[in-house]
Amino acid sequence: MDAVVLEENGSPRLVDRPRPEPGPGEVLVRIDRVGVDGTDREVVAGAHGEVAGSMVLGHEAVGSVADPNGSAFETGETVVPTVRRPPGDYNDYFRRGEPDMAPMDATVECGIDGADGFMAEFVAVPSEFLLRLPERLAPAGFLVEPLSITAKALELVAASREPFTWERERALVLGTGSLGLLTVPVLEDRFEEVYCLGRRDRDDPAVELAREAGATYVDSRETAVDEIPDAHAPMDLVVEATGHAPHAVGAAAALAPNGVAALLGVPGDHEASVELGQLHRELVVGNRALIGSVNAGYSHFERAVEWLDALPPSIVDAFTEHVYPLDRFDEALDSDVIKTAVEPHP
Amino acid sequence: MDAVVLEENGSPRLVDRPRPEPGPGEVLVRIDRVGVDGTDREVVAGAHGEVAGSMVLGHEAVGSVADPNGSAFETGETVVPTVRRPPGDYNDYFRRGEPDMAPMDATVECGIDGADGFMAEFVAVPSEFLLRLPERLAPAGFLVEPLSITAKALELVAASREPFTWERERALVLGTGSLGLLTVPVLEDRFEEVYCLGRRDRDDPAVELAREAGATYVDSRETAVDEIPDAHAPMDLVVEATGHAPHAVGAAAALAPNGVAALLGVPGDHEASVELGQLHRELVVGNRALIGSVNAGYSHFERAVEWLDALPPSIVDAFTEHVYPLDRFDEALDSDVIKTAVEPHP
Repeated sequence: MDAVVLEENGSPRLVDRPRPEPGPGEVLVRIDRVGVDGTDREVVAGAHGEVAGSMVLGHEAVGSVADPNGSAFETGETVVPTVRRPPGDYNDYFRRGEPDMAPMDATVECGIDGADGFMAEFVAVPSEFLLRLPERLAPAGFLVEPLSITAKALELVAASREPFTWERERALVLGTGSLGLLTVPVLEDRFEEVYCLGRRDRDDPAVELAREAGATYVDSRETAVDEIPDAHAPMDLVVEATGHAPHAVGAAAALAPNGVAALLGVPGDHEASVELGQLHRELVVGNRALIGSVNAGYSHFERAVEWLDALPPSIVDAFTEHVYPLDRFDEALDSDVIKTAVEPHP
Repeated sequence: MDAVVLEENGSPRLVDRPRPEPGPGEVLVRIDRVGVDGTDREVVAGAHGEVAGSMVLGHEAVGSVADPNGSAFETGETVVPTVRRPPGDYNDYFRRGEPDMAPMDATVECGIDGADGFMAEFVAVPSEFLLRLPERLAPAGFLVEPLSITAKALELVAASREPFTWERERALVLGTGSLGLLTVPVLEDRFEEVYCLGRRDRDDPAVELAREAGATYVDSRETAVDEIPDAHAPMDLVVEATGHAPHAVGAAAALAPNGVAALLGVPGDHEASVELGQLHRELVVGNRALIGSVNAGYSHFERAVEWLDALPPSIVDAFTEHVYPLDRFDEALDSDVIKTAVEPHP
């Protein structure tokens, strides 16, 4: 079968691999679509995760059960695989059903770090790492994984504000990439006003999508994140979805008292001069918080399925418009549209 | 009656003031002891809060009911006042019983910012801002307020880690001042190992107290906070109790995956060069969090009473050893021992 494989220090290539034989507890999944995101591009660029020998790319997948292999799944069911797997033996994080809380050395990540991903015609997946999806959601099913990232982050955010009455009036999404745009409609359901900050022109399709989903767009070239409280209003929630390093501090500066910033992007090194006293002081006297969040657990994938079902059609259409056959994976990786995907069985 | 009053741009002075007449809903409290802490010194130095006209100093108090004035309190009961009051009319934060979540412009703070404190022979306190204390705890009752700061912070901390299994093995307190030393025994009950970082020599009485309370002392002149993971172990919790601005970043660097740092100190401005990419990245990939916390609500004062009852006698003794009569308040303010207090009725 065909698979897109990245070799250590190499470029991704379409290679022929034997179709996997599902082992005990594993389900054979026919991959229907695999989304491409910034993490994939970082993996290809060698800036994220580790490729030990060679690795199949892709971590945002939707497929259908080709062989249930004795599991509770049925042939033909639409399924989405989660991303993390135990590195060899199960450890406490996997035993507890909290792989998303595993430190980096206690997990591998399919298509990102140390384990084959999903850009292949078929994959074998342990049944516990698969969840069912209503068939009608299959075309956009690869969006469950990025939505699960937001689901986990918002769970941590809500828990952190649980001891008091959190006034959820205004939320700000940093980033107009696919994760940012998927997060806007989720927040639009939960906050009175949603803002979205990016570096795109106002007639860019991504900005249109953000606006259609209900956000007020802020061009970061005109208004920096820390100027948002004065230019618009202080924010009860900021979701950082770019991995731009200065945003850790900028997000804090955009917060209202009792506000919280969720950090989701993974930046490279970036040294800068910072008013640390102000950062520290405003976190304290304003009861503010910065919360990092990575990956997602099974329950977050389940919530993401509900959110996928409620996405605005404009976003679903735009995010499923650029789907390439597997042998044109390089076009999916190189494209500058907001979201692309590959499909192994077009 | 005597009161220690700070005037705008002036030094604190002992002045004669009329004994307050309790208004409707107010209890007349005879002040027994008022603790002195770093915040008081900052208030005197003009670096914290605002003195509009003149203000009675002191926010860590214990007293006894002199006139219940129709409230549910009884004459002679030992009581502790909370610190925040509504700035004129009640607002939502006070109506909800969450004054500690009020932004700075929606509250005043007795003895710190915009309202008279407790360094006086008598004060009138609305009954809702008073809580009862067992009489045997009266001599150290002024420690309830600082303990309440830790109680609130630990509530926010625990809530932020509630969605997953937080492994509470190691905690680190930054600071060997009174707040830091009061926090050590609380953490000692909840973590397997507690560390305490300070800038004192190993034979300093504060270091002795930290050690007696169960902490491993780390001299920050030998081991910086961000070196603690290598020198000792990464920390599941860091409590910042100094207000040293660089600690916001240093605390994050000391955290284990899934760890959380509570920031309690209020620093002045401090600009510095920071590896922002690393800070941001480690917050994200390690599911780490930074949580600011200020002041405390009624329930935190109640928890603090329980904690006061469980404090090691060595700490109680040391913290109640240096009590000065009100007319020697300047010695209490100028002393370099860990904790001092004044008593208006010696």
